[in-house]
Amino acid sequence: MIEYEQSHGLVREVYDDIRATRKTNDINNFWKMIANHPPTLQRTWTALKDVMGGPGELDPLVRELIYVAVSVTNGCDYCIASHRAAAVSKGMTEGMFGELMSIVGMANMTNRLANGFQVPIDDKFK
Amino acid sequence: MIEYEQSHGLVREVYDDIRATRKTNDINNFWKMIANHPPTLQRTWTALKDVMGGPGELDPLVRELIYVAVSVTNGCDYCIASHRAAAVSKGMTEGMFGELMSIVGMANMTNRLANGFQVPIDDKFK
Amino acid sequence: MIEYEQSHGLVREVYDDIRATRKTNDINNFWKMIANHPPTLQRTWTALKDVMGGPGELDPLVRELIYVAVSVTNGCDYCIASHRAAAVSKGMTEGMFGELMSIVGMANMTNRLANGFQVPIDDKFK
Amino acid sequence: MIEYEQSHGLVREVYDDIRATRKTNDINNFWKMIANHPPTLQRTWTALKDVMGGPGELDPLVRELIYVAVSVTNGCDYCIASHRAAAVSKGMTEGMFGELMSIVGMANMTNRLANGFQVPIDDKFK
Amino acid sequence: MIEYEQSHGLVREVYDDIRATRKTNDINNFWKMIANHPPTLQRTWTALKDVMGGPGELDPLVRELIYVAVSVTNGCDYCIASHRAAAVSKGMTEGMFGELMSIVGMANMTNRLANGFQVPIDDKFK
Amino acid sequence: MIEYEQSHGLVREVYDDIRATRKTNDINNFWKMIANHPPTLQRTWTALKDVMGGPGELDPLVRELIYVAVSVTNGCDYCIASHRAAAVSKGMTEGMFGELMSIVGMANMTNRLANGFQVPIDDKFK
Repeated sequence: MIEYEQSHGLVREVYDDIRATRKTNDINNFWKMIANHPPTLQRTWTALKDVMGGPGELDPLVRELIYVAVSVTNGCDYCIASHRAAAVSKGMTEGMFGELMSIVGMANMTNRLANGFQVPIDDKFK
Repeated sequence: MIEYEQSHGLVREVYDDIRATRKTNDINNFWKMIANHPPTLQRTWTALKDVMGGPGELDPLVRELIYVAVSVTNGCDYCIASHRAAAVSKGMTEGMFGELMSIVGMANMTNRLANGFQVPIDDKFK
Repeated sequence: MIEYEQSHGLVREVYDDIRATRKTNDINNFWKMIANHPPTLQRTWTALKDVMGGPGELDPLVRELIYVAVSVTNGCDYCIASHRAAAVSKGMTEGMFGELMSIVGMANMTNRLANGFQVPIDDKFK
Repeated sequence: MIEYEQSHGLVREVYDDIRATRKTNDINNFWKMIANHPPTLQRTWTALKDVMGGPGELDPLVRELIYVAVSVTNGCDYCIASHRAAAVSKGMTEGMFGELMSIVGMANMTNRLANGFQVPIDDKFK
Repeated sequence: MIEYEQSHGLVREVYDDIRATRKTNDINNFWKMIANHPPTLQRTWTALKDVMGGPGELDPLVRELIYVAVSVTNGCDYCIASHRAAAVSKGMTEGMFGELMSIVGMANMTNRLANGFQVPIDDKFK
Repeated sequence: MIEYEQSHGLVREVYDDIRATRKTNDINNFWKMIANHPPTLQRTWTALKDVMGGPGELDPLVRELIYVAVSVTNGCDYCIASHRAAAVSKGMTEGMFGELMSIVGMANMTNRLANGFQVPIDDKFK
């Protein structure tokens, strides 16, 4: 992991932008690891900042709920832990988390029922 | 596929509840296919009705956005088509759909970066 | 697709073994496509013949049910269609198929609930 | 995690049913975690009890083998550990587990070969 | 789908860059569809152009092989078709494609064997 | 785990071949675990040795990069750790690993964009 103190050049620039954007000196392990490949660090941070924090019609909490839904479906332990925390910081209550999980569970179940029963797409959905 | 006219017993009961709940005589192919196994039809419909339409803190549109996010991640063509339509009927604009897709795309990307770089979970997320 | 009549050498040998083992002249599209890479054809057929048809404690129908469960989870349309047919030929009833789907659906749901709720493994399961 | 002693209302009811059904006072961590959202706890337990323990044509061991197959395909560590134990308690031998794994491995391999070689579905499977 | 002739503003700029970079007037359906959300179009094209065509240690054919491997694992029909064509245009032979598929198949198999047998990571790999 | 000293019969034969092929007395945990089902051990080792080390057009490093790409997409911690080490031993630099990860990330993202935007396959790719 590349710590802030060790960083320079492109990595330092990204770290400074992370700090300024998130209003904290703390940098998550995710960024410290992918900093080992500076172009991936920069590309990923720039895109994430825009997608999760840029202007748009979906509010920040909804964006995080969607992020958690995908991460849970893929079973990514790191992303579940970090984005669940981000969702809480943006207002996710215990009840919302429970509802989110029940929807993610249902969708994963019905996705397989649709696969297995080989359901043809209704004309009205085409 | 079991049409409404052919249905009876448990299947007919569920079909009537689908019609009453959705306020339309139309029944989606998904239900007509899984009706071949009545207990699965009933269990799935009852749970879905509750999870997607029951009381809760997340509004109906947000629930559908989450459903679409999971279905896209799993690549379930039927569920993408049907729940995208459901989301539109609950207010999803073209812009929201684009934002949803960009978040789903980002999450699928960073989930793999976290896996591949073997990022340890930050103490603050434990 | 490489038809039987066009085949020779290693591909012909495998095709003859498929015909003899399955007691039919018909060769599935799966084999006709992967025959474009003869070593993959041979390796895959030999392994599949052994795993699905060799001696063992699990009976042939149970083996096919497991195959279908995985294929449905992965959303592989070809494998769902072909192994569902294979399961039927080995005795799977409509009712068994419905039960199979309901188990596959439940497992896909609870797998995500376990991920999302970050459930620690019980000591007794270690 | 919500322990039995702390539970009340709906959670206590479900816990009592788990204890009675499984004939043990022990409650798995899975239930103790999802008890944080009581409606998800109740819905999941009721469905699971029915799907895995209710009447049907598939015997209890076969149901567990299918559950393990899905969990291994999805890489859910918790579910692999807990359902492998459940399968053993219902009669899965070491040999059966090895066969199960070899089938799950083969299906995951051939699912991708079918995807990659873009195999068209045989008319006879439609 | 947004055709070149209909495009303007940001979409037209990206389309022009795609045409110039790929040295063809033809624009793939993928871009024409995601052009419905211009920021996603721009972000995705810019990143893809850099990752697949920018300077680096991996040659263009190897990059495409990796892309195909992921797309086959995820079962994305569109991406398999388009990136297989891209790989062929960069020199992938029939033999290489067969080897690629056999590796993808093996990895998908052993990934599940490692999950299922709950293999602990060797100290030397930590 | 079955150690070399405890092994006999088929397992010992495979272990001896692993040692001879890899020119080290060390046997990875993966083999020691699946040795609990000797036919799976033998089948897997024979296939892996052939696919990863046999004659072919793809060089050994490229084969490992593909293996890592699949393992990262599936989130298999064991396989990521062991095949990343194997790739390094065959010449993967830090820079190559970073590029590999950025390609795997991009492909996972665009696979979902293609799913979600329901992109029809271009005629030229059929």
